Amino acid sequence: MNLRIRKARKSDAKEILRLIIELAKFEKLTPPGKAEQRRLISDAFSKNPPFRIILAFDGEVAIGYAFYFFTYSTFLAKPTLYLEDIYISDKCRGYGAGKKLMNELISIAKKKKCGRLEWIVLDWNKNAIDFYDRLGAKEMKEWKFYRLTL
Amino acid sequence: MNLRIRKARKSDAKEILRLIIELAKFEKLTPPGKAEQRRLISDAFSKNPPFRIILAFDGEVAIGYAFYFFTYSTFLAKPTLYLEDIYISDKCRGYGAGKKLMNELISIAKKKKCGRLEWIVLDWNKNAIDFYDRLGAKEMKEWKFYRLTL
Repeated sequence: MNLRIRKARKSDAKEILRLIIELAKFEKLTPPGKAEQRRLISDAFSKNPPFRIILAFDGEVAIGYAFYFFTYSTFLAKPTLYLEDIYISDKCRGYGAGKKLMNELISIAKKKKCGRLEWIVLDWNKNAIDFYDRLGAKEMKEWKFYRLTL
Repeated sequence: MNLRIRKARKSDAKEILRLIIELAKFEKLTPPGKAEQRRLISDAFSKNPPFRIILAFDGEVAIGYAFYFFTYSTFLAKPTLYLEDIYISDKCRGYGAGKKLMNELISIAKKKKCGRLEWIVLDWNKNAIDFYDRLGAKEMKEWKFYRLTL
């Protein structure tokens, strides 16, 4: 595998959408519809994008991505890199692409003077959880995650 | 109680810091030190603030606050209002100040076309959990919260 990580460009839109639909299926969540797909790409490459994308390539083929943005810890008074989605295509797992994406995120977080990286993971996704544990990340067991849908 | 909600101003800095130190003690977490306090206020009132603050007042006295920022749902392709901290001073609870702050956040989220509000809560904070349940918020039990400290 000829692994390479780089920032996404607008010309990657098709590949990004293909991969996010794969992720939704894998997570058994509703994938973005046509309107959401258009808005996602338009937001991603807008002047003040609300999130950023890095892609993993094997040669010329996009095989994975990470979507992230910066949140903020009021107690540390430092930004946090929040990892919204990370995904490696099924057949391309086990070659270090996920690790390479995480290392790139850690390097971005350090440049931005973040105190932490944070994310959530589905409780049945044992492979992902093992991967995060190997990275030295900690499950914050005492925190419950709440959502109010509008 | 003469309740009023408004955006924080730089002249509220002392009150904000007093309240955030109260919250840290209440949550049994390390409160921000002097350097963090300075950075917090400087970030909050910078040109592109990484978070926003609304305050609850009883007359002229600040009795609570909410810190929030906008994250993003890649599946909805819509921003999310993320509530980083919400706090009402101990003696001022039970008069509806928390509800008023939440209503203001919901109204801000709707204006910004968010699909959701999200936050985390400590599992022993039963009063807060009951309050969130009454609002119609849902605990996302299948998601685990992870952190990597830099």
